[in-house]
Amino acid sequence: MASSLLSRQIALSLPQNLRLCAPGYRYVSKTAAKTLEEFEYDGPSMKTEVPGPRSKELMKQLGEIQNVGAVHFFCNYEESRGNYLVDVDGNRMLDVYTQISSIPIGYNHPALMKVMANPNNLSAFVNRPALGILPPENFPDKLVESLLSVAPSGMRRVQTMACGSCSNENAYKAMFIWYRNKERGHNTPSQEEINSCMVNQMPGCPDLSILSFMGGFHGRTMGCLATTHSKAIHKLDVPSFDWPIAPFPKLRYPLEEFVRENAQEEARCLEEVEDLIVKWRQKGKPVAGIVIEPIQAEGGDNHASVNFFRSLRNIARKHGCAFHVDEVQTGGGGTGKFWAHEHWGMEDPADVVSFSKKLLTGGYFHKDELTADKPYRIFNTWMGDPSKNLFLAEVLNVIKRENLLEEVTRSGKALLHGLYDLQAQYPHILSAARGQGTFCAVDVCDDATRNALIAKARDKGVILGGCGERSIRFRPALVFKEYHVHLFLNIFNDILARYK
Amino acid sequence: MASSLLSRQIALSLPQNLRLCAPGYRYVSKTAAKTLEEFEYDGPSMKTEVPGPRSKELMKQLGEIQNVGAVHFFCNYEESRGNYLVDVDGNRMLDVYTQISSIPIGYNHPALMKVMANPNNLSAFVNRPALGILPPENFPDKLVESLLSVAPSGMRRVQTMACGSCSNENAYKAMFIWYRNKERGHNTPSQEEINSCMVNQMPGCPDLSILSFMGGFHGRTMGCLATTHSKAIHKLDVPSFDWPIAPFPKLRYPLEEFVRENAQEEARCLEEVEDLIVKWRQKGKPVAGIVIEPIQAEGGDNHASVNFFRSLRNIARKHGCAFHVDEVQTGGGGTGKFWAHEHWGMEDPADVVSFSKKLLTGGYFHKDELTADKPYRIFNTWMGDPSKNLFLAEVLNVIKRENLLEEVTRSGKALLHGLYDLQAQYPHILSAARGQGTFCAVDVCDDATRNALIAKARDKGVILGGCGERSIRFRPALVFKEYHVHLFLNIFNDILARYK
Repeated sequence: MASSLLSRQIALSLPQNLRLCAPGYRYVSKTAAKTLEEFEYDGPSMKTEVPGPRSKELMKQLGEIQNVGAVHFFCNYEESRGNYLVDVDGNRMLDVYTQISSIPIGYNHPALMKVMANPNNLSAFVNRPALGILPPENFPDKLVESLLSVAPSGMRRVQTMACGSCSNENAYKAMFIWYRNKERGHNTPSQEEINSCMVNQMPGCPDLSILSFMGGFHGRTMGCLATTHSKAIHKLDVPSFDWPIAPFPKLRYPLEEFVRENAQEEARCLEEVEDLIVKWRQKGKPVAGIVIEPIQAEGGDNHASVNFFRSLRNIARKHGCAFHVDEVQTGGGGTGKFWAHEHWGMEDPADVVSFSKKLLTGGYFHKDELTADKPYRIFNTWMGDPSKNLFLAEVLNVIKRENLLEEVTRSGKALLHGLYDLQAQYPHILSAARGQGTFCAVDVCDDATRNALIAKARDKGVILGGCGERSIRFRPALVFKEYHVHLFLNIFNDILARYK
Repeated sequence: MASSLLSRQIALSLPQNLRLCAPGYRYVSKTAAKTLEEFEYDGPSMKTEVPGPRSKELMKQLGEIQNVGAVHFFCNYEESRGNYLVDVDGNRMLDVYTQISSIPIGYNHPALMKVMANPNNLSAFVNRPALGILPPENFPDKLVESLLSVAPSGMRRVQTMACGSCSNENAYKAMFIWYRNKERGHNTPSQEEINSCMVNQMPGCPDLSILSFMGGFHGRTMGCLATTHSKAIHKLDVPSFDWPIAPFPKLRYPLEEFVRENAQEEARCLEEVEDLIVKWRQKGKPVAGIVIEPIQAEGGDNHASVNFFRSLRNIARKHGCAFHVDEVQTGGGGTGKFWAHEHWGMEDPADVVSFSKKLLTGGYFHKDELTADKPYRIFNTWMGDPSKNLFLAEVLNVIKRENLLEEVTRSGKALLHGLYDLQAQYPHILSAARGQGTFCAVDVCDDATRNALIAKARDKGVILGGCGERSIRFRPALVFKEYHVHLFLNIFNDILARYK
């Protein structure tokens, strides 16, 4: 089998200290490498084009079971390490996309292996509880130790969920419930409401709406999908709700060079938001909440200014709408702060903040008043997975211990400046480099060139992701250091040079 | 701490062979008990009322973070074993509800502990992949070994998802996509469709519907919730879709005694289904799919005859609607067959079968023609969790090795006959005992008495669940043997005797 062959090759080629902390080894804690340099590989190593022959074979096999049109290649996760993802053909690639931005501290981090080696943790993996009715003894403590230790300003309450879509769906429900109780002036529904909701009708199922933004992405279940407007392929053929959609500012980059034009564009969008809130109220479909990403990710890494978000938060407050900041992709440190909205510098940035991906568990924080007023209103069988909280607590320890947010800020500066240099050198290919921390992106002249660059980078040992119509997004793990940035920039420069 | 105290108590009170396979111990495989009797406890053991003082303390603590109105008590999962759930106050209860029907083979089963002890598996827990783009090497094999080994008749394709709601949401989307392509005659959308879907409008977001049944439960995200009609508390204040809702037959039990009346009732409901399909087509909201549970669980354990389901399947075919059987609660063996729909004895029972809970991973099987026609249409970041597939493969091994479906059938007969006896003895309290396998239920004279019985049973060491307006549902694990049935019946009889 490819993986065992590879493991032999690696055993032969690695220094002794690396062999001892190979992922297969149980008691990593005792022999764990002290630094990332010691732990991970020293660079990409390519043996075939990607996908290689073994990946193609497996793709055929999986194709009998599922649509594999989106599969890039098959991975050897056992041999992957730190910033390097190893595939089943023995190719080792620098991962600047990290499973759609969902690997916080790299592959097989010794601290996470340690969670697995602790016998006290086993039962959390083997016995998944129905958290909403029968939580384990350590659940409150683990929440305090993990999620609550990074609670956004003004929030002390959190609800875990299994994934990003479920997090947003339930956050929307919490906003609808809160809004209706506010409209009623109390939380006792009428008999008419109770009866009509059972058959999907008003007033029990009210015609409330969530205001979202063009280019936004909030998930693919039907509530979330009604607020997602990034690509047609996500939405086509699925029934939806008639909810208001505001324009997201289309800014010019770098932001600091186009302050005046950008401020005008943002003012236009904010005005439109207020108009839509009024219009939908008049239509009988009041806006219960506004949902927005601090940086539109899937939609093309679209930024807006601090002033835009502050004004939007005020508009929400003024019109009595809940303000929901979706940090599923931006949360967890990639922007150099744990939450992207911290860059706004507000004491009361939001009513709801949802998360998933790098947090390993889904869920949402919320203000006290958005707590569901009765049991079983925000509920499902699993309500998350406490085994993910164990990993998250360790991830947060590592972030603190290794000052990873500072590292991200440092690496991010190097990455953004490198992209500025490259776009100056290849202005016919690259433009609009932008980013916060390592959460960076750059536009490519067209869709086809963007896709070609991503494919070429992969064959040279770098995994990148696309977003929007013609952007490349950078989503490395928090352990992506300055020397990884330079490694990437050199490889990318070589590829671009061919296009000159 | 309560748990370490308990572990000492248990160590003192247990025979040597039990001590060796205590959950905290790593190499369970070497010393695993050979039989369930050896492995688990010999009966309930109650030290306090439930919730006890430690649970109440933790509830207060968790109440600072979440609504805890639904929390029953806090658990010591480390000390729980087989059919027995241990709480943080040292109470050991026979679990006939199993985390809302989601524990397949009991707590801390040695076979599952073995999965954790295998170093080859560690990486699957530590590195959660974006399965839709970067699956691990063993993913196709694990699917074949686990899910595909239990694929419903006529189905060779399966999509994994993180939970039951996501499974149904994505199954609905697959049905909508399939239906629209059928209407179009091809799968190339018009420019108008592409543009309009981005803003939630027709024709890109078509006015299609899913037909569901009163009393049905299919989840709580907004698409699923539009097909859920079991309790108002799930639906109140959440916007919904105007989709058709058919009556589910209200049958008299035992079914074999009321064949004629029940057949009339079923005919009435089937007629209504056809009327609704026609009516909604005329309204411009064609029914793309019909969704139904083989036994309405949350809604009150409502059964229908084999003939009803066969006829319904034919109606779906006749009108060109997809037929989606939701086995999230019924799947996994509780009815004595792996899928409840197997009791219908059909070669072509459904177009889609969704699952979660006892299967440990969510997902849905589907006919070839319901495969999404393009990549990224049925997609999200995680697309399930391959670490759950590892456990599922083991669960299926145990089911086969220990003939658990036969055991369930045997225990289920004992349970149902016991319930028949009890309702004959206490006709003023119990009625309408019904069930398939151990998937049984009984009605109680009223809501308050039902809740009181469940609370009293818990204080006597038996965990039961409610469903519908005044039913008790029985959802033991597949390792619930005849002697557990008798244990339960004795305790329940004692409680009922007080009401006589």
